[in-house]
Amino acid sequence: MKLALLGLKGHVTAIVAGAKLLGDVEVVAVSDNNLKAAEAFLKRLPQSHAAQAYAEWRHVLEHTLPDVCCVADESGMRLEQLLALLERGVHIISEKPLVTTLADLERLRAAFAKSKSQLTMLLELRHQPKYARVREIIQRGGIGTVSQVATQKSYKWGERPAWLQSRARLGGTIPYIGIHSLDIIRWVTGLDFTHVAAFHGRSGRPEFGETEDQASILAELSNGASVTARLDYLRPVQAATHGDDRLRVTGTKGVVEVNEGDDAITLVTEAGTERIPFETTENIFVEFVKFLRGGRPPRITADDSFYITEVVLRAREAADEKKLIALPPLRPVRAAK
Amino acid sequence: MKLALLGLKGHVTAIVAGAKLLGDVEVVAVSDNNLKAAEAFLKRLPQSHAAQAYAEWRHVLEHTLPDVCCVADESGMRLEQLLALLERGVHIISEKPLVTTLADLERLRAAFAKSKSQLTMLLELRHQPKYARVREIIQRGGIGTVSQVATQKSYKWGERPAWLQSRARLGGTIPYIGIHSLDIIRWVTGLDFTHVAAFHGRSGRPEFGETEDQASILAELSNGASVTARLDYLRPVQAATHGDDRLRVTGTKGVVEVNEGDDAITLVTEAGTERIPFETTENIFVEFVKFLRGGRPPRITADDSFYITEVVLRAREAADEKKLIALPPLRPVRAAK
Repeated sequence: MKLALLGLKGHVTAIVAGAKLLGDVEVVAVSDNNLKAAEAFLKRLPQSHAAQAYAEWRHVLEHTLPDVCCVADESGMRLEQLLALLERGVHIISEKPLVTTLADLERLRAAFAKSKSQLTMLLELRHQPKYARVREIIQRGGIGTVSQVATQKSYKWGERPAWLQSRARLGGTIPYIGIHSLDIIRWVTGLDFTHVAAFHGRSGRPEFGETEDQASILAELSNGASVTARLDYLRPVQAATHGDDRLRVTGTKGVVEVNEGDDAITLVTEAGTERIPFETTENIFVEFVKFLRGGRPPRITADDSFYITEVVLRAREAADEKKLIALPPLRPVRAAK
Repeated sequence: MKLALLGLKGHVTAIVAGAKLLGDVEVVAVSDNNLKAAEAFLKRLPQSHAAQAYAEWRHVLEHTLPDVCCVADESGMRLEQLLALLERGVHIISEKPLVTTLADLERLRAAFAKSKSQLTMLLELRHQPKYARVREIIQRGGIGTVSQVATQKSYKWGERPAWLQSRARLGGTIPYIGIHSLDIIRWVTGLDFTHVAAFHGRSGRPEFGETEDQASILAELSNGASVTARLDYLRPVQAATHGDDRLRVTGTKGVVEVNEGDDAITLVTEAGTERIPFETTENIFVEFVKFLRGGRPPRITADDSFYITEVVLRAREAADEKKLIALPPLRPVRAAK
């Protein structure tokens, strides 16, 4: 199987690790506007002896026809890249969000419906063992009916490339980071969103540019449960870890919680407090390739990817315009077979 | 100083403790629809040898003229009680919220403006040493500019009296519990609210009746900081503590956090992680009586009490009607002298 990578700006290490596990994946080309980074990336890859590095992503598709392509470039470039891949029937593992505007999402939706490509998105939280375990606990009824969810994603900003400071190139903090939070909430609960509101803001520190350094999202799930997701880039450099992720789900029969650095999930029910360990989970790229080879759909489907992109773009709109937005139900991107 | 108590349904122990500390406060009357509870309450009080217990609160005001009255009855009864006290010029220490509808709040506001009574409200979190310390840290610039606030109040429901199941008698979970969260956010940050949205819901468990067992509130502060406050009554009976209160404030220069059971506040800044202890703070009733005797205003003023009651009633409206509401600025309840 031939793999190309457009951009090296995201969760590319998971793809490389997956390719290594599969053993029969050949990297045929990689592009990044930082050509030196692309070349250095190839040098480290045993699977890439014949691969070429390009500064311009279009050259990848002019010179090769990969079976599958990882798209991890600036968010503002994604629509054109995805359209080019869909046109060629190349399977896609995309960074998040799929695109940065609702108009672009509709264009992509139409192109996807006509294409033979399969698509998944790098919502890597679904492949973190702790969240897979939380999902199991909730889906087996371990906390009863889901009533409330709260998440946090807090990061250090540190040194970041310039494109992350631009609304046009990044799309904003809610689409870029909030998509992880809202997707993991949807996945562990098994519930879609019905309403969303949000506020986001900039502290004025120059290193953030146009990008919001904090956001808080409020949403409602289809069963009436309420959701809050807070995001910030204000974690002090001296803090113990780069990130400070937290998840708490309250149900009618218990509370399940897992926070940054925890080596077990905490489940409190009428039976008392349990510490539940978590195991490994399948690599995101391996799972997608198995699907391409006739296996079952990956845990992050194209429907999931389009749906959650729409939700975060609506959440950003809610924050930009200070309004509460009713969300439409998931629209399948391809007719059921 | 003569003290009466209308209702024994709230934070009455803080009043009793304060009266004991002051030493010269005489309890002259107490009412509760549970007359036996009122009588038992008086028996335990050394300051109450001449006091009378009544089942009907109006009898208190027919038979005595207290200097100050603690109003801790069902929330739905509060307007009439407060109006009767304002008419008589009795000073008021009220349970929260002041009233349960915006129309009632306007009636109360007009009556207060004409009255000679002073008023404070039992927002007892302001008298918890940990929050007073968080306020000091933030007000001295310890986290820079406030960017984001998140709070949690999670409680066991257990055995609760019937009035707590009624919207008309309680007013709902956001006004009853959320008022603590929103007030403490406002107090520690020193910032008012500009917008609010919320969702709340009932799981259908019969013991909650009409009362929401969960709510999530989203708000914006006057400097653009975002706020989330989550409330729930779903804490399992087997959990280690009755409540699970949490507060986290993120600023441009640090994060301050204190959670249930913590014996110190955690402050993370570029200087590293500090554990900051907290000391005692003045009793709420003592502080109010000192004010009545010519001292400085209590930390919970009448303006604070009216303002935060309006905010939570708007938040409940936002949740009931699934909309985002722009909040008016604080309107002083009496013209400045």
